[in-house]
Amino acid sequence: MPHIALPKEYPGIRSLFMYSPVTARPLNNLVQTLLYDPSTSTLTPGERELIATYTSSLNTCKYCANTHGAIAKYQLNGNGKLVEDVVNDADHADISDKLKALLKVAAKVQVDGKKVTTEDIAFAKKQGASDKEIHDAVLIAAAFCMYNRYVDGLATWAPDDPAIYDAIGKQRATEGYLTNPNAITHQTNALS
Amino acid sequence: MPHIALPKEYPGIRSLFMYSPVTARPLNNLVQTLLYDPSTSTLTPGERELIATYTSSLNTCKYCANTHGAIAKYQLNGNGKLVEDVVNDADHADISDKLKALLKVAAKVQVDGKKVTTEDIAFAKKQGASDKEIHDAVLIAAAFCMYNRYVDGLATWAPDDPAIYDAIGKQRATEGYLTNPNAITHQTNALS
Repeated sequence: MPHIALPKEYPGIRSLFMYSPVTARPLNNLVQTLLYDPSTSTLTPGERELIATYTSSLNTCKYCANTHGAIAKYQLNGNGKLVEDVVNDADHADISDKLKALLKVAAKVQVDGKKVTTEDIAFAKKQGASDKEIHDAVLIAAAFCMYNRYVDGLATWAPDDPAIYDAIGKQRATEGYLTNPNAITHQTNALS
Repeated sequence: MPHIALPKEYPGIRSLFMYSPVTARPLNNLVQTLLYDPSTSTLTPGERELIATYTSSLNTCKYCANTHGAIAKYQLNGNGKLVEDVVNDADHADISDKLKALLKVAAKVQVDGKKVTTEDIAFAKKQGASDKEIHDAVLIAAAFCMYNRYVDGLATWAPDDPAIYDAIGKQRATEGYLTNPNAITHQTNALS
């Protein structure tokens, strides 16, 4: 049960966005910039969603890991197996060496930014990562250390039904993060 | 030395804001909403800055802990001793029981949102914290787990001179987070 009185019909961060619209706005603008807008990064939306999913998985945030895993799937032409492979064993997943190196950096950031070493960065550069891509990977991992803590720190509820995450994933991959969650919630209610 | 090529004349997160204006905008809008705008929380800006300072100190983020410590001081009528007391031993600092309880919640969030217990929340409510204040404390702590990781994950430099933090603290407490950092950087250069 959530720690505070949140609207029951919304899961995860959606319940927090409905509860506190004044903070929802900058939080959604941030995630739109980090993960969705094509002009803000040379990493693809699929790569960025994988970094978000991977970090959320390391933080064992059920709602965020499942939601961004589903969004990543839709950003990767429906390749849900690739998302699972990255979460389970990124080193052997069918992704670029550059993305593998950036995920290693993200894993350090998830623990503590100071864990990132000059060797980690040199390795990422050797695999083709630009300064800006390293910047983006660090910031996405850092941001999900926020979103995950926000979602879990207030004990929001996370659905068990994969179909709910799939519906959210399809919506966000199509519309981005700035549209109203009502439509999906009605669909979610119908599904659950 | 920073991990990527950042403008050398700016310390900490300022160098990242100059490097990546496209992400600086939503990050600054978020911190303005969380810490500065009087209408977004019933916690005072001083209380909110103390939560940010405390979390940054737990994350041992030198730049953020010193910067927000200085902003907190200016938001608390120049009471720098109170800021130091909160960082060193919050339980015995001259702050309200409500804020002490919220700092305990923030300390749990700093480790993992799932560490926050129903007992922590019940205790905070008993000390007078509203649902929205608990929400705000959790989100501020979570947000500084992001800012701290962003600043440290890219190995930005943090000044040693307390006068630099003091100048930044005065500026941000007066102007908020949406003004250009150039003025203070010139002052910082003059001071350093």
